[in-house]
Amino acid sequence: MEAWMRSTLKRCPLFRGLSNDRFDQISGLLSVGVHSFHAGSQVAFRGDAYEDLLIILSGYLNGEFRDYSGKVLKVETLHAPDTVASAVLFAPENVLPVDLVAVSDVDLISLSRRVVLTLFHKEEQILLNYLSDNGQKLTLLAEKLRFIQFSTIKEKIANYLLDLSKSQGTETPELRITKEKLAEVFGVTRPSLSRGFQQLCDAGVICQEGSLIRLLQRRELEFLVHKEEKQR
Amino acid sequence: MEAWMRSTLKRCPLFRGLSNDRFDQISGLLSVGVHSFHAGSQVAFRGDAYEDLLIILSGYLNGEFRDYSGKVLKVETLHAPDTVASAVLFAPENVLPVDLVAVSDVDLISLSRRVVLTLFHKEEQILLNYLSDNGQKLTLLAEKLRFIQFSTIKEKIANYLLDLSKSQGTETPELRITKEKLAEVFGVTRPSLSRGFQQLCDAGVICQEGSLIRLLQRRELEFLVHKEEKQR
Repeated sequence: MEAWMRSTLKRCPLFRGLSNDRFDQISGLLSVGVHSFHAGSQVAFRGDAYEDLLIILSGYLNGEFRDYSGKVLKVETLHAPDTVASAVLFAPENVLPVDLVAVSDVDLISLSRRVVLTLFHKEEQILLNYLSDNGQKLTLLAEKLRFIQFSTIKEKIANYLLDLSKSQGTETPELRITKEKLAEVFGVTRPSLSRGFQQLCDAGVICQEGSLIRLLQRRELEFLVHKEEKQR
Repeated sequence: MEAWMRSTLKRCPLFRGLSNDRFDQISGLLSVGVHSFHAGSQVAFRGDAYEDLLIILSGYLNGEFRDYSGKVLKVETLHAPDTVASAVLFAPENVLPVDLVAVSDVDLISLSRRVVLTLFHKEEQILLNYLSDNGQKLTLLAEKLRFIQFSTIKEKIANYLLDLSKSQGTETPELRITKEKLAEVFGVTRPSLSRGFQQLCDAGVICQEGSLIRLLQRRELEFLVHKEEKQR
């Protein structure tokens, strides 16, 4: 395996927490066949059998839905060295739930299910990483589903911040995911999300200090969430 | 462990495919502490730490979202002997993504993460069942997200049937999930779903023969999907 591949794979969430020695020991199991795709090309279709675990070596791709009229709903963006659709690999009908589209030029390697299972047996940390990744994906998808019911970005932000304040037990909760990730959960663009936050800051409803958000007018946030409900 | 518990657990998806002997050997690891909840009571809240795997011994519960205005969105219904939120158990922030509400009286047992990992090591089939369950949940959630974009039930059915026809490569695709499960994926009630199918049958667009659906007027189904797009 080439050095750049090895160092990329070492950073893959699947191998998080492994010592260099341990990684070197197990990396002999990893296939080195590389599949390359040009920017804009279709890596795989929703409904395709997903028999081997794909890991992105370079570039990034989108997981998205496209309906029969051509409308696209982006579900997530995956960057090197992420794994692709790991939860689906062992699903009873293991087919891709989304289309995979290369956004930049993309290089991928694939690991067979058998190799993945062997890795689990050789190193419990890899199994834990895999399960952790599945859990995170499911949580993000559930959140995305939850936020769809709030129609405007300010409503989504209001609900998210009230929620964060409750779970952290403070009026100054900390944003623990990046704004990129949050925009993805909300299903909006990053600039739109920033505008939403800025409008709430300008109105004196919240105040942002680094990753901390100070809830200055909680009632205003609650009003935003309730207003939506009344209009239905 | 009491006999009824043992026979219930034996049918749990987690232990699918295990021989009676093998199940008896590993069942000694399973805790027998039972948590009981009355119909209508809250089993757990979204955001609660999820430290132990819950398995439903009797009854059924809903996983649902409730926003600050009290609006409820049901995500799924789980029946004995299902596992609860298995994908979340090993998530980096292992908190429940949904509220759990007992619909009937419910009995649950819990397995610690350590015990679950021990089961994985003792029996690969249990690990495969667990991964399969995670994959199925993620797929259903992704489908639910996809179907939210279609506003009417007939549009959802049309998209689903066109999709099924494509993936099975036939104009007479087979419904491989129950109408109950399909209603859940669509986020509609079972009677509404049946009405939708019936209306399409009455209009001569489809014809149902057991689990087979004959697409009599494909163009009409495509029109339903496209109409929605045009109205946006």
